[in-house]
Amino acid sequence: MLEHGGKLRHAAQRYGIALEQWLDLSTGLNPQAWPVPEIPVSAWQRLPEDDDDLIHAAQQYYDAATCLPVAGSQAAIQILPRLYTANKSSLRMGMLTPTYAEHAHAWRCAGFDVIALAADEIDAQLNMLDLLLLVNPNNPSGYTFEAAQLLRWHEQLVARGGSLIVDEAFMDPTPEKSLAAYSDQNGLVVLRSLGKFFGLAGARVGFVFAESSLLHRLAELLGPWPISGPSRIIAIAALQDRAWQVSTRKKLPQQSQRLACLLADRGLPATGGTALFQWLETADAESIHHQLARQAILTRLFSQPCSLRFGLPANEQQWQRLEKALSELDGAYRLPEVAGR
Amino acid sequence: MLEHGGKLRHAAQRYGIALEQWLDLSTGLNPQAWPVPEIPVSAWQRLPEDDDDLIHAAQQYYDAATCLPVAGSQAAIQILPRLYTANKSSLRMGMLTPTYAEHAHAWRCAGFDVIALAADEIDAQLNMLDLLLLVNPNNPSGYTFEAAQLLRWHEQLVARGGSLIVDEAFMDPTPEKSLAAYSDQNGLVVLRSLGKFFGLAGARVGFVFAESSLLHRLAELLGPWPISGPSRIIAIAALQDRAWQVSTRKKLPQQSQRLACLLADRGLPATGGTALFQWLETADAESIHHQLARQAILTRLFSQPCSLRFGLPANEQQWQRLEKALSELDGAYRLPEVAGR
Repeated sequence: MLEHGGKLRHAAQRYGIALEQWLDLSTGLNPQAWPVPEIPVSAWQRLPEDDDDLIHAAQQYYDAATCLPVAGSQAAIQILPRLYTANKSSLRMGMLTPTYAEHAHAWRCAGFDVIALAADEIDAQLNMLDLLLLVNPNNPSGYTFEAAQLLRWHEQLVARGGSLIVDEAFMDPTPEKSLAAYSDQNGLVVLRSLGKFFGLAGARVGFVFAESSLLHRLAELLGPWPISGPSRIIAIAALQDRAWQVSTRKKLPQQSQRLACLLADRGLPATGGTALFQWLETADAESIHHQLARQAILTRLFSQPCSLRFGLPANEQQWQRLEKALSELDGAYRLPEVAGR
Repeated sequence: MLEHGGKLRHAAQRYGIALEQWLDLSTGLNPQAWPVPEIPVSAWQRLPEDDDDLIHAAQQYYDAATCLPVAGSQAAIQILPRLYTANKSSLRMGMLTPTYAEHAHAWRCAGFDVIALAADEIDAQLNMLDLLLLVNPNNPSGYTFEAAQLLRWHEQLVARGGSLIVDEAFMDPTPEKSLAAYSDQNGLVVLRSLGKFFGLAGARVGFVFAESSLLHRLAELLGPWPISGPSRIIAIAALQDRAWQVSTRKKLPQQSQRLACLLADRGLPATGGTALFQWLETADAESIHHQLARQAILTRLFSQPCSLRFGLPANEQQWQRLEKALSELDGAYRLPEVAGR
């Protein structure tokens, strides 16, 4: 298993600080999650039924012709390579790097050679590829591809019988950039998730958007009842709550901007980010990570490249706690040119 | 997708009877489910952490050395064939018939030839097999193999490099017959589920018991976070609730016996059953199914063999409703020898 953010128990043990004292900024989850209502107890008891309103609610929210609900986009990440294994030796798979590591892990485990590409290399390399997988906006860099660019790449890939796969886990704040509306086209697969924007990572609900025949094959591989009954109920209600979505789409970018300013003020200008996190590429990432952890603030440390991801604090108290911790960082981590600030 | 019990929306539509009017006896789920407590809202929001108490609680409850929690035993059914695909052309897979249809479906989809065997054929055919898959107690026949018999078969299979796979979804009322305690042995895989005995089918929690290396391979295939956070919390508490388990182990066999008597009194003696359901093999299964459905009582109809499964009513009112509906069945379905009763 790969390392992930959100491993609070592990951090609590490692730093000898009780679980409830931590401020967990290690994930890119919305800390002001969609407010979960009371769930009818029968949802725990009965087998989930797949002819509820979930697909309809998803079609409306994502503006897509059809979709397959899955147990978080991770479930799709695990299984997608199986759709292509029949000719894996002849398929050249390109993937943005750095990006969410589970993608490359799943394809490599399935026996694919994965060609790692920087964002600015893709256009030049595209004619060498059959499959291209991107996370858009990218995690952790925040790099965002324009829909028009992606559709051009999709067209080129499909012309050679290839496919474009786009993981849009962080797309909800900018729905106008999503490819979900185009996903009934041959050779285009889009992944979405309720984990980040809705802050419902514990519910394990995600969606695959693609042409129907591909979704049918995925559904057969995943089998019946991949999502819990209560999670289906919550997902339907969250997807239908337009007022909450509109207000959250306003709030998140403001909060992320505040985080970027706070970090920059402390001599830690972000390399990139989205409405849900800021990301800093710095040789001092490990030192900063440990110093903050000793103050019970958990960030996400990446080694390749050496970098840190900060999620959003949930409330004013948490903002002040982060600000204080950042101001108490040992200056040794600072880059020479800002050391004197 | 295969047909299953619990398709209440489908029945409501087909028979033009509102959803809330149905008495659903189409599944073998305990209708007096483990009482789900309030869930901390953070469980919906955070990524589930796999170092909670779930594995420990399962080890205790199932009396097993180690296990892998999965999103219902169905998730294991979908993925198990992938552990054996490397040499599928040389592996002879035998499976009890009739049994829970998802097993054969999953192995056939993975490219295996499945040899269907009646319970009394297995012993004679065992030396022809590399893999043997049984549901114990069997669904829907209720046929139960003794642990000693299964361990002998396991020994014979393992001697040839084979494996025994036992789905114990209905085993909880008779834990003394479980093979979970032996599952750290090479070539033995046991599946369990919280769906039936605990009546928590909506939570999607099951377990695979096997030697560690096999569990590690399964975990890699399934990827992180297959189970929702709230489901993990509920599963831990249900597995630890000894008082409820003891009392339920007493109650269920009594209720199932009552169901068997009720059916026999109406000229429908059960062919088999477990503490959670009764099963009737009868040429009139379809007629009885439809007649009961017109009274908004849903049973599970099987075509091979032509048979009906009745789950347990939840309360006295439901018992009386079933009794009344059975007494109003058109006598045409009855077998000649009991027609005059």
